[in-house]
Amino acid sequence: MDGQRNEDTVRPPLRLALLGCGSVGSQVVRLLREQADDLTARVGAPIELVGVAVRRPELQRDADVPAHLLTTDAAGLVSRGDIDLVVEVIGGIEPSRSLILTALENGASVVTANKALLAEDGSTLFAAAEKAGRDLYYEAAVAGAIPILRPLRESLAGDKVRRVLGIVNGTTNFILDKMDTSGAGFTEALEEAQDLGYAEADPTADVEGYDAAAKAAILASLAFHTRVTAADVYREGISDVTASDVASAREMDSVVKLLAICELTDGPDGPSVSARVHPAMIPRSHPLASVREAYNAVFVESEAAGQLMFYGPGAGGAPTASAVLGDLVTVARNRLMDVRGAGESAYAQCEVLPMGSTETRYHVAIDVDDKAGVLAQVAHTFADHGVSIKTVRQEGRGVDAQLVVVSHRAADADLAATVEALRTMPNVHDVSSIMRVEGDGE
Amino acid sequence: MDGQRNEDTVRPPLRLALLGCGSVGSQVVRLLREQADDLTARVGAPIELVGVAVRRPELQRDADVPAHLLTTDAAGLVSRGDIDLVVEVIGGIEPSRSLILTALENGASVVTANKALLAEDGSTLFAAAEKAGRDLYYEAAVAGAIPILRPLRESLAGDKVRRVLGIVNGTTNFILDKMDTSGAGFTEALEEAQDLGYAEADPTADVEGYDAAAKAAILASLAFHTRVTAADVYREGISDVTASDVASAREMDSVVKLLAICELTDGPDGPSVSARVHPAMIPRSHPLASVREAYNAVFVESEAAGQLMFYGPGAGGAPTASAVLGDLVTVARNRLMDVRGAGESAYAQCEVLPMGSTETRYHVAIDVDDKAGVLAQVAHTFADHGVSIKTVRQEGRGVDAQLVVVSHRAADADLAATVEALRTMPNVHDVSSIMRVEGDGE
Repeated sequence: MDGQRNEDTVRPPLRLALLGCGSVGSQVVRLLREQADDLTARVGAPIELVGVAVRRPELQRDADVPAHLLTTDAAGLVSRGDIDLVVEVIGGIEPSRSLILTALENGASVVTANKALLAEDGSTLFAAAEKAGRDLYYEAAVAGAIPILRPLRESLAGDKVRRVLGIVNGTTNFILDKMDTSGAGFTEALEEAQDLGYAEADPTADVEGYDAAAKAAILASLAFHTRVTAADVYREGISDVTASDVASAREMDSVVKLLAICELTDGPDGPSVSARVHPAMIPRSHPLASVREAYNAVFVESEAAGQLMFYGPGAGGAPTASAVLGDLVTVARNRLMDVRGAGESAYAQCEVLPMGSTETRYHVAIDVDDKAGVLAQVAHTFADHGVSIKTVRQEGRGVDAQLVVVSHRAADADLAATVEALRTMPNVHDVSSIMRVEGDGE
Repeated sequence: MDGQRNEDTVRPPLRLALLGCGSVGSQVVRLLREQADDLTARVGAPIELVGVAVRRPELQRDADVPAHLLTTDAAGLVSRGDIDLVVEVIGGIEPSRSLILTALENGASVVTANKALLAEDGSTLFAAAEKAGRDLYYEAAVAGAIPILRPLRESLAGDKVRRVLGIVNGTTNFILDKMDTSGAGFTEALEEAQDLGYAEADPTADVEGYDAAAKAAILASLAFHTRVTAADVYREGISDVTASDVASAREMDSVVKLLAICELTDGPDGPSVSARVHPAMIPRSHPLASVREAYNAVFVESEAAGQLMFYGPGAGGAPTASAVLGDLVTVARNRLMDVRGAGESAYAQCEVLPMGSTETRYHVAIDVDDKAGVLAQVAHTFADHGVSIKTVRQEGRGVDAQLVVVSHRAADADLAATVEALRTMPNVHDVSSIMRVEGDGE
């Protein structure tokens, strides 16, 4: 990045500080250099990289970062007062939060890819951006390179979004896809994902749904103009999904996916929203079912637009850097015009429903004695909890049989209570598979 | 729309004129009413509909348009001087062009869904918007409700788009899908599309690719920051696609789609671009292959983000109105802040390649005598034209045989010349199927 190269342009360069220079940051540096002329034309002024905060300056990096730009003093960099733009790709809560707040206070506009921070404490950041009159953009925080936040916030601003179903974690999608195509169990598929670099050595954040839950909070906040935090998101991971669950799904011509689900529900006291992450069976004919390997996709149902899907790579240095730079061009243009883009919009302030009150549907496999009257007992148990049955299929003969029940929509708490009651019934040996069902239009 | 309802908001209403009140316009009116409170919150001021220009005010409409707002004097409406925002959903070149130009001259920002006008004479409109310092937005012009123009223009602004493959015409996708699933011929599938309302009585604009070509021009212009008009787009429709072409595709585990293809090609004299619309075989494993019925999708390959796909309904009153209102919220916010969004960007001014110089690949079925040496003759003919063969498959035995050849990439003119030469070869009876091949990564 050589500011001198652009001395013939009218506008002085915008000064950019980069916080973090790992896989995403290195790609940001590369793209800033390779696309410098295009970026200048699109922004209306050159972007000049004036500092890169890293923890270990001696580290070999993918990108060729001029040594004189490297600093370990991130706080000093964002508070020096001559920075127009800050890109934060460190991740995690601290020091990222303090650095972003300091950057905003010092008059910089900020682009971040930090989903965990936004989902935990977005409102502090949004308030600081509002107060400073600066932009805080974060397209890269959800689904990597896939443009989804901007479409939700801007393209669908004249529509009413009713539901978002997202495959927003590539690691778990890779594992579940592998289980579906090879019949492997969870552990085996996880090991393959680790061998291929799709899963980390400690895969907890991905496998237990924490990463997806943070993204669900961000998606729900934008889709419903309501503040939803990670703590509001019900979360179940995929470590309990068995090869037999996947086989059950296959028998229903369905596939198991870890979904981030955000819904708007109309009620007598006005609309409420819910956000949850859990494995679910979806029909193979659903557009999300064809999202293979580590790809991500977000399926949006809105009142006027109908069904939309956004598909692409959900992670990786270059794709994430593409999303960061798209935001950077927008906030840089805004800086030149001295305006802000659309900030946080939480005007709707809908109630956020707890999981128990959220309507879901269950697929339950029940191992029972093959006796007359057992089906009637099971059906009674569902009815006693106010849960209506959509289909029952009996499998096996002789001493043991299996009943596979798919319910209609009911409050999740009632469905869970039904399962608990089934477990203690005479003639029921086990409830061997429980999974929610989504995406079949019921 | 009652401006009085919003008297407690700080900002005075923005005044909107609607030009055209057919299937899209009626839905715009409905959404403006039903979402009034949300729109006010998202824009920061109410939007007040102050006039609706129609040709026949006496017509019964889907939406409940107050009679006193209707006028047949569209030119008078856009020039009265107190209009902040204009939505044009009349379509066609005139009077739409004159009305949009008058609206801009009179200080209004404009949202249009008019693909034909933008593809034919976008530069006149963009220049007028620039001169007036107003916005001209047109997300609804391509692929209905699918947010694709905004992602191309903004989300990917820090990336380099290399290729856009779009299924951007629902009618032709419905027909080709029907031919694929039922084995029907073109005429039969077209009749079914007409019966179901997916094709018009005169289907020329859809079936012959004119509609898709207009959209290709718009997509290429945005993707490559270069002015591309409808006249620059090579165009072939689907009326010559036969049941046997579709069967040939099936044998290759492929499917025939009408694609709008926009490409950036690096050459010794810098990058050049191309835009074309024609039927092509794509592998069934390609994400576009699963786009069924009248749905649209746009597949984007960019340098950093990789492969992205945007999917949804490509037409219809409500979906198109959703895209119009998304734009309306943005241009209304810009009006309040007295700024413009990103205007036309044609800084790259790449050369637009003619079709003959554009690299494509052919799938050719050649009916030949089953004699020794015929394959060698055919191979020679390809080689003489500088075209390299990727695969040859021989089918049939006895007197007649069929050679199915798939080429490597070559200039389309060389491929076309190869086919012409094949037709006049001894031992060749007919070149019975010619179709370009896309999307298999070659």
